[in-house]
Amino acid sequence: MVRLATRLTERLGIAHPILSAPMALAAGGALAAAVSRAGGLGLIGGGYGDGAWIEQQFAAAGNTQVGCGFITWAMAKKPELLTQALAHRPAALMLSFGDPRPFAAEIAAAGVPLICQCQSLSHIRQALEAGAAIVIAQGTEAGGHGASRATLPFVPEAADLIARESPDTLLLAAGGIADGRGLAAALMLGADGVLAGTRFWASREAMVHERHRAVAVAATGDQTVRSSLPDIARQLHWPKPFDIRTADNAFIARWIGREDAMKAAIDTEAAAYREAFMAGDPDKAAVIFGEAAGLISDIPAAGEIVARMVAEAAALLGGAKRFLA
Amino acid sequence: MVRLATRLTERLGIAHPILSAPMALAAGGALAAAVSRAGGLGLIGGGYGDGAWIEQQFAAAGNTQVGCGFITWAMAKKPELLTQALAHRPAALMLSFGDPRPFAAEIAAAGVPLICQCQSLSHIRQALEAGAAIVIAQGTEAGGHGASRATLPFVPEAADLIARESPDTLLLAAGGIADGRGLAAALMLGADGVLAGTRFWASREAMVHERHRAVAVAATGDQTVRSSLPDIARQLHWPKPFDIRTADNAFIARWIGREDAMKAAIDTEAAAYREAFMAGDPDKAAVIFGEAAGLISDIPAAGEIVARMVAEAAALLGGAKRFLA
Ligand SMILES: Cc1cc2nc3c(=O)[nH]c(=O)nc-3n(C[C@H](O)[C@H](O)[C@H](O)COP(=O)(O)O)c2cc1C
Ligand SMILES: Cc1cc2nc3c(=O)[nH]c(=O)nc-3n(C[C@H](O)[C@H](O)[C@H](O)COP(=O)(O)O)c2cc1C
Repeated sequence: MVRLATRLTERLGIAHPILSAPMALAAGGALAAAVSRAGGLGLIGGGYGDGAWIEQQFAAAGNTQVGCGFITWAMAKKPELLTQALAHRPAALMLSFGDPRPFAAEIAAAGVPLICQCQSLSHIRQALEAGAAIVIAQGTEAGGHGASRATLPFVPEAADLIARESPDTLLLAAGGIADGRGLAAALMLGADGVLAGTRFWASREAMVHERHRAVAVAATGDQTVRSSLPDIARQLHWPKPFDIRTADNAFIARWIGREDAMKAAIDTEAAAYREAFMAGDPDKAAVIFGEAAGLISDIPAAGEIVARMVAEAAALLGGAKRFLA
Repeated sequence: MVRLATRLTERLGIAHPILSAPMALAAGGALAAAVSRAGGLGLIGGGYGDGAWIEQQFAAAGNTQVGCGFITWAMAKKPELLTQALAHRPAALMLSFGDPRPFAAEIAAAGVPLICQCQSLSHIRQALEAGAAIVIAQGTEAGGHGASRATLPFVPEAADLIARESPDTLLLAAGGIADGRGLAAALMLGADGVLAGTRFWASREAMVHERHRAVAVAATGDQTVRSSLPDIARQLHWPKPFDIRTADNAFIARWIGREDAMKAAIDTEAAAYREAFMAGDPDKAAVIFGEAAGLISDIPAAGEIVARMVAEAAALLGGAKRFLA
């Protein structure tokens, strides 16, 4: 089988420049290990921080090398979780959504590569100050939390900044990448690889309710929206500038523009939301995926997803000379 | 010099798969002709519809083949402008922001290729019904008017739809493309070429105030925002779902979230806005560009922009095999 080699594959010692995102609740050890076994690198979603759950997921990954990612502002409230994760000698530790600098020394001391997911140039500057080995430029089309920059112009601008200020730092693209076309495009934009969330969320190994998966398979990329509604319903106090991209479903339609009404009714609404989410109700809670859902029409094994992305990207890159007349 | 060949260059008989956008006020005959002479195709911005101005711009383009683009909902109020533009036998007629179907027959009868700029899959379906020769998938990172899809995932999803329903229709990517990296990425995503606005707006031939250009050169891609404020100030009644991406300047900061206050004061504010815009005031009126401004650091001739994009894309595409291990 063909391999796709970049500075990332060399640095991490992996076959393909593809990482699966550390998606809170959805990305456990089974998904992460499946991606790593297929030649990419899978990341366990440390999420809002449940120490026992994280232990279970490292156990589920077994002897396969995986990484772990935290939501920085949430982990900052329980920094012992970082120490706990580092004790597993993860292949990489990813921080997203918050200032990574307070945690850089501990991660460096553990000899673990730091990955910082960034939503703006100022986030990238923070990541470089933290000594990140890998910066991810995440576009607004991404599923889950994020901000406003779009992947296509953000990645080359990030590449220029990094080339000037820290040329040994690697760059990944995230947001909207679900197939070999997106992977090949990211490499042309100057990225050393990609991080994909939505595509791996819609895999057999992800911890996602069957009915939620069905929504993603049916949805076009037009049918997602950014809002703060799921965070209000979950009573999660996300800092600015982050909001969350989800399916544009009945839950969103019911509350959009009525954030204050939801806050006023939060005692009943929070419980109703939680119940609906756990039941996989596709209408009464958020279904979390990004614009890339429009490129998804099945729920394969995660390893199959890696193989397809690589084969398609390799064909495109190998044949790219045909455009030269 | 190297050429970049795609179905687009073949169909339009041009050297490179690069179109300059029909930017209202900014894209006159000089810019369009410069892009065409450099091997792309330049489009005159028919904008909100001023017949005398359009005549002048076709005259300024001289014998060079150029196209013309209209804001569909505005042109629909003065459809004689379409007839007038078609009389110049443009290389292509582009419609954006509104239903193209009522105008398709007249354009087809004139033997002029129809280009439809689309912001969602439903817009693309309308364009296919109109018999568009070329569909443009425009992402939210674009300068000027647009909607919410992002270029990177929208283009391959558009490509899949077109491949299923109308495989002879060509597809261009627009939004965030300012250099050869964006062009090469667009081709990997399945586009037959690109339409660039912001990059050509920041060229010598564009009709843009010197002080506005300076803002774009200084800006990063983080410093733009979508709003309806410039349209309210100009008393332009843009239909949903369109808003406009501009620099995130003092004008925006003053009014954002206070749309109703501006409407209440519109008699004085409209005049103040117009005066500030004409004077090139970078703070008291909108400066219209997209996230691609972060990739722009100079104001070259438009022909030089085409040459740079082609050379950079050719190097990337020609060398893309290096990723195959
Ligand atoms: C269901 C879901 C949950 C996510 N949770 C997290 C998270 O806990 N931490 C994080 O850093 N990113 C999270 N993300 C964002 C991803 O890291 C990544 O940026 C995104 O998925 C990339 O865009 P894509 O979804 O288009 O591939 C999540 C994404 C999804 C779809
Ligand atoms: C200053 C400016 C004016 C624009 N005016 C128009 C217009 O009148 N009609 C139109 O179809 N598109 C217009 N656009 C949008 C372009 O057609 C195109 O979609 C956009 O510029 C592409 O994104 P980019 O700016 O990142 O290259 C304008 C864009 C800019 C920057």
